Amino acid sequence: MQEAEVKKGNRISEQKLINFASQILVKLGVSENDAEITSKVLVESDIRGIPSHGVARLKRYVDGLKGGMMIPKPHEKILIKTPTTASIDAGGGLGQPVSKRAMDMCIKQALDMNVAFVTIKNSNHYGIAGYYSMMAIEHNLIGISMTNSDVLAVPTFGRDSILGTNPISFAVPAGKQYPYVLDMATTTIPRGKLEVYNRLDKTLPPGWATDETGTPCGDPGKILENMKTRAGGGLLPLGGAGELNAGYKGYGLMLLVDILSGVLSGALYADNVYPKDAKGKPLPSGIGHFFGAIKIEAFRNLEDFKNDMDDIITKVKESSKATGQDRIYIHGEKEFDAAKENKEHGIPLDSKVVYVLQEIANEFDVPFEL
Amino acid sequence: MQEAEVKKGNRISEQKLINFASQILVKLGVSENDAEITSKVLVESDIRGIPSHGVARLKRYVDGLKGGMMIPKPHEKILIKTPTTASIDAGGGLGQPVSKRAMDMCIKQALDMNVAFVTIKNSNHYGIAGYYSMMAIEHNLIGISMTNSDVLAVPTFGRDSILGTNPISFAVPAGKQYPYVLDMATTTIPRGKLEVYNRLDKTLPPGWATDETGTPCGDPGKILENMKTRAGGGLLPLGGAGELNAGYKGYGLMLLVDILSGVLSGALYADNVYPKDAKGKPLPSGIGHFFGAIKIEAFRNLEDFKNDMDDIITKVKESSKATGQDRIYIHGEKEFDAAKENKEHGIPLDSKVVYVLQEIANEFDVPFEL
Repeated sequence: MQEAEVKKGNRISEQKLINFASQILVKLGVSENDAEITSKVLVESDIRGIPSHGVARLKRYVDGLKGGMMIPKPHEKILIKTPTTASIDAGGGLGQPVSKRAMDMCIKQALDMNVAFVTIKNSNHYGIAGYYSMMAIEHNLIGISMTNSDVLAVPTFGRDSILGTNPISFAVPAGKQYPYVLDMATTTIPRGKLEVYNRLDKTLPPGWATDETGTPCGDPGKILENMKTRAGGGLLPLGGAGELNAGYKGYGLMLLVDILSGVLSGALYADNVYPKDAKGKPLPSGIGHFFGAIKIEAFRNLEDFKNDMDDIITKVKESSKATGQDRIYIHGEKEFDAAKENKEHGIPLDSKVVYVLQEIANEFDVPFEL
Repeated sequence: MQEAEVKKGNRISEQKLINFASQILVKLGVSENDAEITSKVLVESDIRGIPSHGVARLKRYVDGLKGGMMIPKPHEKILIKTPTTASIDAGGGLGQPVSKRAMDMCIKQALDMNVAFVTIKNSNHYGIAGYYSMMAIEHNLIGISMTNSDVLAVPTFGRDSILGTNPISFAVPAGKQYPYVLDMATTTIPRGKLEVYNRLDKTLPPGWATDETGTPCGDPGKILENMKTRAGGGLLPLGGAGELNAGYKGYGLMLLVDILSGVLSGALYADNVYPKDAKGKPLPSGIGHFFGAIKIEAFRNLEDFKNDMDDIITKVKESSKATGQDRIYIHGEKEFDAAKENKEHGIPLDSKVVYVLQEIANEFDVPFEL
């Protein structure tokens, strides 16, 4: 009954999708364990209603593994390890497996020592930042996850993209309420939103992106074209262009993420990331990540903390709504709702993604069915 | 020569201003040591070109100490201390002295253990967040400082102020360049900017504040009046109203700061802060703070880190400018420039502040001269 419904609406079960993606990655030389971790992180994004970071990206991973940007069996090394910190070289492998291991280590250290941070250099795209911060929740820790990323964003008063959309995630356990899960890019919008507006032929609001002169620009097609040709311009930091709406704050957070993920880890940073060789062939992207965990009980009684988390969440949610609005959301709430729905009814895949996954299935001779 | 110039432009030397503020606080029962710390933090804000958080606030401290909101000689207690964390009860005293001691402890712990966090509850206004994060820099640590604050901000889709402007500060040492010092409220603007716009009879841009229906509002007088009467509305989070420019991100950061400073510390949070007794008399504000320090050398060689900091700063600063702009700033840079100027020529005080300080001087029979 449920199965039929899933097929009807292009929905697929979590496990099927994980198995499919894993098999593809294994065919490309990734170990079974690493393939499974990577697939789980991708599919978790689909489950949480963030398809932009889900299996829709599998094609980029296939290309990355084929093209040498991602090393299927990297030589992963712990460079420094102390009781409260570690610094890891990912060896140019997939971002997810090394990040999962790093966060596991960080959690273990924080359980022992109350606080821990782990950095990774020489890595690749690691999926949703929130996957790793959320790992801390079940251990009653506050989790932190950040990464630098491909160069798409323009600093305040600049005209060239020189930083990434550099997301920040914090996850905090609550009691009866959903945990608080912040997972935000430090630009106003992600690149994907430009593509959506371009398809719909819609004009961009002024706080989203600039043209090659550094001036806010409403034409998504022009900005996407500029990005492709590296003509200048790009996404604006949270707060928009100039100082009027405090875009320098979004730019400051973006730079902070690059400092913690890129500079502190010893990774590439700013527009050094995603390098190419002399012939224009992509090299490992060289990005870095930053993970943290903080034990709540090192500061106060856990139950009291959770009660207060429930209380602050309830207080904010139950405060009066703006005219025309009927709900105030806490961060992560929409995604927990989506996860409940998608775990029960299967993960919805849009027909374009289904088409691409079927092409990959054919190429690697791995069955794919909804 | 310099002295004459100082007098001419209502400028005053750093030390004179610290001495004056200290004497006033001592007259109100604050210990000499705590008075000096508090005055130094206030004056540092003036030095860094942020007069809104400087000695202009002394009147509020005088009123707070007289009115019972700030306890002059509080019973400060360390509630929990581990090698990497501490949780402190400030006893309702001034925010600055306990925060300075907490950050000193945090730095010492991070020098020993690589990472540390310290929370404070039952505190009061602590001045500029950046004062404490910057204390870490000379020890080659990354410093973190956050605080919750008076209720002025409206969550996304809300119509009532329920959170504070909750600032975030991170300070990171560099090599030859100025350190990176982020110190940002999580609202688009501070309340003070409403007052400036009101005086100038200027209309607010739509991303700044809402009226009592939760709708963006251009009339600063109306919003200030609503704040006074608690009629609803207030400052908007970074990113503005609704979802269009991702105001939920600013709101998410604002809530995060309240979780770390308010909930984790066991302090008051959301609109519980700044309570009053049954007769409407202000009680200690009950706010909390969150401090952190991270040792750079626990992750990589310090000199390499500093070289890369100089490089990322230079890269961003030297990237192409938007049409009409000739400089890209790094966070903290404007304030370091102001500090250089003000340390050399004295701190400029506007005539309104001079008037208020002279009134305080008369009340407490302490000499005040420029």
